[in-house]
Amino acid sequence: MESRKIVTAAVIVIGNEILSGRTQDKNVAYAGKHLNERGVQLAEVRVIPDIQSRIVDTVNELRKSYDYVFTTGGIGPTHDDITSESIAAAFGLDWDFHPEAYKILEAYYERGAFTTARQKMAKTPVGASLIPNPVSGAPGFVVENVYVMAGIPNIMQAMLDSVLPTLVGGGQLLSQTIVCHLPESKIAEALGDVQKQYPDSDIGSYPRYENGAFVTSLVVRAFDSEILKNATQGVTSMIEAMGASPIVIEKSEA
Amino acid sequence: MESRKIVTAAVIVIGNEILSGRTQDKNVAYAGKHLNERGVQLAEVRVIPDIQSRIVDTVNELRKSYDYVFTTGGIGPTHDDITSESIAAAFGLDWDFHPEAYKILEAYYERGAFTTARQKMAKTPVGASLIPNPVSGAPGFVVENVYVMAGIPNIMQAMLDSVLPTLVGGGQLLSQTIVCHLPESKIAEALGDVQKQYPDSDIGSYPRYENGAFVTSLVVRAFDSEILKNATQGVTSMIEAMGASPIVIEKSEA
Repeated sequence: MESRKIVTAAVIVIGNEILSGRTQDKNVAYAGKHLNERGVQLAEVRVIPDIQSRIVDTVNELRKSYDYVFTTGGIGPTHDDITSESIAAAFGLDWDFHPEAYKILEAYYERGAFTTARQKMAKTPVGASLIPNPVSGAPGFVVENVYVMAGIPNIMQAMLDSVLPTLVGGGQLLSQTIVCHLPESKIAEALGDVQKQYPDSDIGSYPRYENGAFVTSLVVRAFDSEILKNATQGVTSMIEAMGASPIVIEKSEA
Repeated sequence: MESRKIVTAAVIVIGNEILSGRTQDKNVAYAGKHLNERGVQLAEVRVIPDIQSRIVDTVNELRKSYDYVFTTGGIGPTHDDITSESIAAAFGLDWDFHPEAYKILEAYYERGAFTTARQKMAKTPVGASLIPNPVSGAPGFVVENVYVMAGIPNIMQAMLDSVLPTLVGGGQLLSQTIVCHLPESKIAEALGDVQKQYPDSDIGSYPRYENGAFVTSLVVRAFDSEILKNATQGVTSMIEAMGASPIVIEKSEA
């Protein structure tokens, strides 16, 4: 890869329900795709349980290793929602009412319905800035490079969308997908040669078995559009030389 | 929780395509659910890129912290499949042809089609035992407490299914789901009291917004069936006291 600045992120998924298999996570794929479009590479994900010490340790380890850290889950009103308090503990900050969050939630609920449990959602680490929640009122928040978001996918997505423009990204990893109807084990050697020929690109091979036939998607990734184009050409030529017809998908995910 | 032996596991998902958002992981939910049925609690998941040093460090950290470690992805024939070699490096073992794996793959491919690239899939850390692959031949393998499996979901599932009976599990976390048509913020305080009343259970609250109404699933988890029953009763009574009708789902996921 050329010497463009690489900006990295980690996602911490907080929730017993993901680990138990009850809930299928959908936030990681959304974050990976949209962060990259902003020039931020998702470099690690951790899924951890709703245990304060685990949240504190994981946040403190990853916020030093990556430019940005995003957490999902555990900011609701119930007893098992402990993310907000745990982030305060991670930073050694007090955890108290955020005046703006309190106002937002007070206005969101009908008179008399802003109960003690709901008021909990107005608390943040002291000094945090808010991430708006257009879906259900209760905001997320940011402390330094840690972005704390809801776990419910449509709320998480709205929160991420609202912070994306504020992130300082580096190079965007461009990609091109080439699909061919060959098993990957058949193309592996020639593909390895193409990879060696274009060391500034990163070529991934993703096989699947579909309607009784092997299909392989080859994804070429590069920060530079010229390198991307040349390496893609190298892959399509290789497939044609094997007697198959490559299908290049113009708009592809990295 | 009572003093039953807790057996834990971690899953390491290896693959740039998960981090980039190209591919939606489905293996974690499958592993979490089926490991728990075997009495093994999935306690952490990490998603990391196809980089040898990252694989080595992550495997060496987690295999000391958990009873079992399962990896998914990166054991195919192409240049970006580096998991097998990396596991050998993590354990300080040589990486070479596994006689049994070689025989399996030699028989799987037609004469002349067992190419150098395909032969790579017959290599394991020396001394590993194999995990059969009924779908596409190339086996996974086990070194000590580390289980190395394919990333393609149907192959991963077949591999996990074949090793599950060999795992030594502890207590199985039983669970019961109670659904109610109330927003979680309305039940949060009373639910916190129920949790306090049944400290040996673990009550999770999972809200969603469905057809214009708030729905909350309350999941009661316990290792003991009597405790599970009592805590579930506590939750249903609480919901009834709020004028709503709890729906208990008899067969539920943890």
